[in-house]
Amino acid sequence: MDRDGVDVQVVSATPVLFAYGRPAEHAMECARIFNDALLELCTKGHGRLVPIAQVPLQDTELACRELERGLAAGMKGVQIGNHVGDRDLDDSALVEFLAYCASVGAPVFVHPWDMFGGCRLEAWMLAWTVSMPAETQLSLNRMILGGAFDRLPRDLRICFAHGGGSFTFLLGRLENAWHRRDIVRGLSTAPPSTYLDRFEVDSAVYDQRALRYVVDVMGPSSVLLGSDYPFPLGEEHVGAVIRSCGFAPEMEQRLLGGNALEFLGMDGGG
Amino acid sequence: MDRDGVDVQVVSATPVLFAYGRPAEHAMECARIFNDALLELCTKGHGRLVPIAQVPLQDTELACRELERGLAAGMKGVQIGNHVGDRDLDDSALVEFLAYCASVGAPVFVHPWDMFGGCRLEAWMLAWTVSMPAETQLSLNRMILGGAFDRLPRDLRICFAHGGGSFTFLLGRLENAWHRRDIVRGLSTAPPSTYLDRFEVDSAVYDQRALRYVVDVMGPSSVLLGSDYPFPLGEEHVGAVIRSCGFAPEMEQRLLGGNALEFLGMDGGG
Repeated sequence: MDRDGVDVQVVSATPVLFAYGRPAEHAMECARIFNDALLELCTKGHGRLVPIAQVPLQDTELACRELERGLAAGMKGVQIGNHVGDRDLDDSALVEFLAYCASVGAPVFVHPWDMFGGCRLEAWMLAWTVSMPAETQLSLNRMILGGAFDRLPRDLRICFAHGGGSFTFLLGRLENAWHRRDIVRGLSTAPPSTYLDRFEVDSAVYDQRALRYVVDVMGPSSVLLGSDYPFPLGEEHVGAVIRSCGFAPEMEQRLLGGNALEFLGMDGGG
Repeated sequence: MDRDGVDVQVVSATPVLFAYGRPAEHAMECARIFNDALLELCTKGHGRLVPIAQVPLQDTELACRELERGLAAGMKGVQIGNHVGDRDLDDSALVEFLAYCASVGAPVFVHPWDMFGGCRLEAWMLAWTVSMPAETQLSLNRMILGGAFDRLPRDLRICFAHGGGSFTFLLGRLENAWHRRDIVRGLSTAPPSTYLDRFEVDSAVYDQRALRYVVDVMGPSSVLLGSDYPFPLGEEHVGAVIRSCGFAPEMEQRLLGGNALEFLGMDGGG
């Protein structure tokens, strides 16, 4: 952390531990064990390690209960996978969980996992370079077209990993399709581009041009420092791409920390 | 065509007609019927309709034979789907077909089809807005990592639809992964970004920012006007996004036609 100039770090489970495919009680036990271990780990961080919870997302009631316990113990939010089997984030039970998060003021970080694609994506980590960003784009498309954002309160804080996957880049394709074909619109009440103020994305795109593009589309207040640390495909020196972009100092500070502190409710602003 | 200021239009089959999943002789018959009909149609275009061939890609020998017949009859190139079942464009038989295209000087246009994803992508044309651009990105990733470009001659002309899908935007993610994990590299001999001069993409991204991004990454000589016409998700007024970008006149002319004429060998330059 000191090497990369990181003051504060959010710590979460790796998606491998989600256990959404297991019976809900098993996933609840996994979450409890993980959350307790994480809380213990973070107490040793002298305030520099910030824990966010894992929950058994396949069962909304249990997920809400475990998040409540985590928040009471000092956790600052929750990380979820972007889908539970065939249920995406527009599924009514998952929307209910997100509504609960909004009601208790818990920010939600969404990480792609359990990637689609089959045998054509088995080699060379193609599931990570191709399916993961497509999974995240799919989640955002489904939240928009499935009417999830329309049903959720505006004060829900929700952030998507890896710069929102391929969502921002393919927004023009979705927007054009939305206007030209009624069957594309689903349950959405307005064009996809009007939902950009309903979520945030992290900065983990590993490329100056791509990061500038994401900041341009999302706006400078909606992109939070993301590292993927300590995953091997993460950024080797956390924050290096942001620092190399030549953003104005105030914007750089927002991207490096201000936006994330605000998202986590740790900016002292309330 | 006159309404949108289109002088010349390339005409190809819709992927629905590829028949790659059928026995090769059936697909050969489909290709023959389609190519004959297309040749007849294009003779009525007074030189403004340019036919490119369909081939039974599941059988390299038959595919080469039908392309040879098409070229002899005046076709200017070939359109292929981006995969044949589980075989992608790094498959040895498909690479052999691409090598044949290079040897006879036939430009290749690659269109995504037969999209992965399953039931989570069935609603709202998500297979078109999510899987199609991911399919194209997968093809390019596989051609690079699978060593297809390394095995193919540099004079192969190959162009990918829809601005190359999400490839250019996610190139930073692939590049970072390539450098950080050996298992990502596959059979490739150099980082992914060094292969950008081996292919072209069309301009069908339906968004100024996305088009500028694609032109920035690919270079102004490697982006060809694409319309998706008359598919309903295509550009309503062909060329409108290019014209709205405020490119320098020379670059705009390249994007609107010069690059495509060069790709098709119709620029009079030989």
